[in-house]
Parts: sequence; C-alpha cells; structure tokens
Amino acid sequence: MPSSAFSPSRRSDVAPFIAMDVLSEAAKLEADGRSIIHMEVGQPSAPAPKTARAAAEAALAHGRLGYTEALGLKTLRAALASHYQRLYGISVSPDRIMATTGSSAGFNLAFLSAFDPGDRIVLTAPGYPAYRNIIKALGLIPVEVPVDESTRWCLTPDHLLEVQKEGPVKGVLVASPANPTGTMMPADTLENLIRYCDEERIWFVSDEIYHGLDYDGEQKTALETSQNTIIINSFSKYYCMTGWRIGWMVLPEQLVRPTERIAQSLYISPPEISQIAATAALDAVQELESVKAGYAANRDLLLTALPAIGFDRLLPVDGAFYIYADVSAFTSDSLEFTKRMLHEAGVAATPGVDFDPVAGHHFMRFSFAGAHPDMKEAVNRLSAWVS
Amino acid sequence: MPSSAFSPSRRSDVAPFIAMDVLSEAAKLEADGRSIIHMEVGQPSAPAPKTARAAAEAALAHGRLGYTEALGLKTLRAALASHYQRLYGISVSPDRIMATTGSSAGFNLAFLSAFDPGDRIVLTAPGYPAYRNIIKALGLIPVEVPVDESTRWCLTPDHLLEVQKEGPVKGVLVASPANPTGTMMPADTLENLIRYCDEERIWFVSDEIYHGLDYDGEQKTALETSQNTIIINSFSKYYCMTGWRIGWMVLPEQLVRPTERIAQSLYISPPEISQIAATAALDAVQELESVKAGYAANRDLLLTALPAIGFDRLLPVDGAFYIYADVSAFTSDSLEFTKRMLHEAGVAATPGVDFDPVAGHHFMRFSFAGAHPDMKEAVNRLSAWVS
Repeated sequence: MPSSAFSPSRRSDVAPFIAMDVLSEAAKLEADGRSIIHMEVGQPSAPAPKTARAAAEAALAHGRLGYTEALGLKTLRAALASHYQRLYGISVSPDRIMATTGSSAGFNLAFLSAFDPGDRIVLTAPGYPAYRNIIKALGLIPVEVPVDESTRWCLTPDHLLEVQKEGPVKGVLVASPANPTGTMMPADTLENLIRYCDEERIWFVSDEIYHGLDYDGEQKTALETSQNTIIINSFSKYYCMTGWRIGWMVLPEQLVRPTERIAQSLYISPPEISQIAATAALDAVQELESVKAGYAANRDLLLTALPAIGFDRLLPVDGAFYIYADVSAFTSDSLEFTKRMLHEAGVAATPGVDFDPVAGHHFMRFSFAGAHPDMKEAVNRLSAWVS
Repeated sequence: MPSSAFSPSRRSDVAPFIAMDVLSEAAKLEADGRSIIHMEVGQPSAPAPKTARAAAEAALAHGRLGYTEALGLKTLRAALASHYQRLYGISVSPDRIMATTGSSAGFNLAFLSAFDPGDRIVLTAPGYPAYRNIIKALGLIPVEVPVDESTRWCLTPDHLLEVQKEGPVKGVLVASPANPTGTMMPADTLENLIRYCDEERIWFVSDEIYHGLDYDGEQKTALETSQNTIIINSFSKYYCMTGWRIGWMVLPEQLVRPTERIAQSLYISPPEISQIAATAALDAVQELESVKAGYAANRDLLLTALPAIGFDRLLPVDGAFYIYADVSAFTSDSLEFTKRMLHEAGVAATPGVDFDPVAGHHFMRFSFAGAHPDMKEAVNRLSAWVS
C-alpha cells in the first residue's frame, strides 16, 4: 500500500511558528559546537522564582501529583483573585478564574467556547502568529488589520468600523503590551476600544501575558472596563515560568461552564506541579521585580546600541521584552536575513514575517529577555557582522 | 449593556466529562469532612516513580525550565524509540516520535492534522468520552458503533462495512486495553482491523495509553501491523504520572511536520519538567511492575467481591484498571445511581452514560487504580449500601 494515499488534513496547512523553527535551527548549530545568542524566543533567562521552585520541590517530596479539577486548584484560583485586588484594585470572583496549560490553552479554549466556525476575529498586524494559526485551525477567520504609527500601533474603533463594512465581527483580540512590538495601548485608547466592542456585542479578548513588564505607561486590565472581556494571562513571562506551561483566564460568567466542559475533554487539567509552583510564584514580587530591572537594563543598552549599529527605526518599547526593528535599510527578506544573522553572526532573532506576512518582510524582532552579558555580546556580534 | 447578548458558541455545547464532575462533587464532600473512596477517575494512587521524581528534583535544582522544541526533547524521543525496541522488538525512528502534553494533546493534534471538518471518525460505544467531545468541538463527526458480547466488545471490519454504507469513513479510533471496559482486542482481531483500514485508506488511530497494564492476553502495538497508524500514548497510566500531563505520539512520516506546525502554535511545547521526569520514568520498570501487581491484586479482589454483592455482570477485564459492570439489576439511570452511591455509600464511580449515552444508562465504571485498602473499604461500603 503506498502510504502517500494518506495525506494530512487541509487545515493542518498552517504556517509554522518561525521563532520555534529558528530555536530548533539554533539548537542544531549549538549541538555542532557553535555559540548562539538567543534573541528569538520570548523566554526569560531567569529561572522560576525561589518560592515557586520550593513549592514544586515540596510537592515532589510529598509524592503524588494528579489530575486536578479542570478549572484548576482552588488555592491557585483564590490566589489569582487576590492578585487582581492587589495589582489593579478590583474584585474578581475565583469562580470566574480558570487555570490553563499556558496562555496557549487559554486562547484555544476561548476560541472554542466563544466562537463558531466562520466567525471573524480581528487581530492586529503585526501580532503573535499563534493567534492567527490557532484561529485558522479552528475554522475561524482571522481578519488582520495593519496598524502603524498613525495610531501609535494601536487598534481603534475606526479600524473596526472599516472591517464591519465587509461583514460582522464576532471577536477582537488585542495584547498590551504587545508582541512583537512591545508597545502599550494608552489607557483611554484601550477603554474606548473595549466600550465599542461592548456596544457592538463583540467579544473582547485581552491578552495580558506581558502585564507586569511595563517600563513606560499605565498598565490596565480590560476587566476594569467591562465584565464581558475574556482575559488571557500566563506565568510564562513576568513570572519566568515558560517551561511550566501554566497560565490563567478570567471569563465572563456565562462562559465558565462551557469552557470548563471543553477543557475537561481537551486538557483534563493543567499540570498540578505547575499549578502549585504558580500559586507560590505570586508571592515572589521582590525577586521578580529584580528580574524586571534586568530587562530594563537590557532595554536601555539596546535602545542605545542598536541605533548606533544601524538598526535605528525601532517601535516604541513600552513594555514586554521585545524590540521590533524596521530593517528595510538592510533587507527586504527578513527570513533570509534571520538565517544569515544566525549562521554568520551567531545571533538568533525572529523575522517580522512571523508576525506580519505582509509588512514583516522588512522587520526583525529581538527579544531582550536574556542575560545582560548575552545582550552585550549580541551587540558586539551584530556590530561586527553589519560592518 | 445586558451581558446576555454575549453567548457561548454553539460548539461549546459538548457534554461534560462526567467523571470529572463526579471528582469535583466528591472533592466538595471531602471538604465538608466526608470520607470518599475514589473509583471515578482512572488515576493511579502511586506517585510517579522514584527515578522520575529524582530527575525532576535535579531539574529544579539546576534552575531554568524553558520551552523545548515543539516535538519535545531529543533525549525523551530517543528514549521512547528504545522503548519500542525493548518492549515490542520494533524499530521506530525518533523523528516520528513527538512528546505531547498528555494523550489529550495527542488526540487534539491527531484530529487536527489528519482530519478536516465534516470527516467521519468511527468510535466504539462504550468509549472514552473525551474522544467524542474533542471530535465534535473540532467539527468532525463521531460515528459511535455499539459493540457487544457478539464480538467480545471489539470493533471489526464488518462494523466498518456497515458504517461505510452511510458515507465515507476517514478515521477509526480504537483503544486496547479499552476504557471503560478494560477489554483487549485479540492480536488477530486488531491486525485484521488495521489491515482493513490500510486497504480502505482510513486513518487508524490507536490509543495505547493502557499498554503495560495487561493481565490476560497478548499486547500488540498497531505499529507492528502498519506504519500508517497514528499511535497515542501517555505516561499517565502505567507510569503513574497523570498530573504531569505528558504523553507521546508515533506519527506516520507525512504527518510529522503538519503536526509539529500545529503544535508550535497550539501548545508551544509540553512542560519541560514533565519531559525530563518522563524520560527517567522509562527506566523504572521494576518499581512500576510492583505497582501493577497491586492493580492485579485489586482486580482479583473485585472480581470476586463485586459479584458476591450483586454486581455480577462484568465485562472481561483483560487490562487497564477498570471494571465495567452491567447494573441493570439495580437501576436504569446510572447517573442518579452514581449520585446516590457517592452521597449514601461514600464511593465515587462513573456512570456508564459518560461512555455510552445510549446503553450506558445501566452500566457503571469502577476504577481499581486506587490503594488496596481503599478497594477493600469500597467493597464493604458497597456491600452495606446495596443490602
């Protein structure tokens, strides 16, 4: 029997997540003995906070780690409710909070519980590629709206009005601070957009994974404006817990049980050891603020050094740990530029096409979540390579 | 704005995974001080093996746990390839092995990469409810074929011939040992079914999560018969690692890259600590065989004690750690029976309707993965309750 008769599904023909492919290629070079500076993946170089690791160790010593309720451990959900009180001064019932296997699971669950096949979801271009890929795989239609300097790279009700002319919009997904740009929406811009969505009965999905990592500007959760918003968050970034795959959602009441039902079958529950560690991570503010100070130092370094090398067209870096650079002075093929930078300079970064298939050809994303000496070395290598 | 205008998606209207709801209800009773014997969830009472916990501790001490490649750590994939050599005497390339966030992720990824919306997938009734729920949520059509004593609860090519009369079949999903029945397919029955699927170009998805837990009968992986099969497996059952959410797939070559691409966006990677622990768990055969001996003792106890109480119509328990009992002598409403058993007898079990919406009304599933003293206590409580 020729196995060629068995073919992959049409819907599996999604784009790769190029940052992950760069990571994989970089790993191959490292296995061959090459030194690579990693600026391709949005991953803190710091380990999970001590409180989190101590809690995980205690759980290991205690022994059994099992399935939890699909919504997650009650202790974690209660701790997250306190987190909203402490950080934003708002009251959220733990019943509306759901632990998820990273924000990845949060997106998947939100898309499944709020949207049906054929629904149109508005995203910004540039934006996190997994949004677009998950949306497509689930039969939804991503409508990518190019944003630019004219709105300080923010989505606005005017953008939505334009999109609505072509058909109904069922959802809007926004991140602030954003990936790959690192820009934040001013508080009133965010509020206006959410109010518009509320009036139009458009689900507003707020990706708040980079909350806590703000250097400039005021950080607001969408929950402050409307209870109809779907909040996605994670312990991966501020809490330095990428590899633990643990995040959370805050859901409008009417979505809790539908989302729980889907999660029971699709995930059963998030990893228990990660839930236990995450609960403890919420108490590690001091340690994490010191990690954040390291990002701030990296940011200061790169905002001076990159323009000096020639990467002088950078978007506003208000938050997160990304610099999105217009590299049209160097290339009109960011993917090829990425490969050359990796192989020739030993610096891994992510091509803009990962985030924006159209304009991304002349952008690069540099993550500065790494260690400060690595960032310095990256500057040296890039400087030598460019000249 | 009335939030009622925002409603859940139609596709989120999947059935709950009742076993998880029973777990949740049992947890509430326990919080009120009640003692509950857990026979509702297929979860080993033994902790992850010592080798696994030691490896996890070492990883914690070492510090950073990050994203891995979407396919998983090379060390884990290589160890799994050796596992196939050792256990089944077959050679599988690590390139075709993918680590997944539990078998849950394996199913989700397999359904997305092999099937398009509208495709019909054949399942057995009774069967694991998450199959049906995930399939529906992804726009596929589950075709549940009732199996019974006439084929020793096995799916056969004759069943498929019948289903094909109503339209094309794109996939078949079978578990052996099965959940909830614990029955295994005889080697030639399994082989015939796979060969039929190969000839008809039907993807054969083999859920081998209960491999290693066989008490009677010969254990075969579908890989021995065809390279076109999609193998789903997990460290949750034999390796006692439910809460770690780690499993694996063996994929036909042409599905590897499509599945990797989807996984990059949908999962990024499985939890790294779980991948590290799982790699070490593969070396813990001695410890795990002793855990299995405990299940065998539980099985012996229950196969004698349950019929004595009146639960005397049990399906063949060849493997796994489930007893599927026909309780039509007691009830025609297994859900109500479950609630009474939980509240009155303090024994949590799962109603057959979770696994079979039609015939399940007069079946109950008892998991014997618990500790032996708990199984004895369950027998005492059920005996007192029934009389």
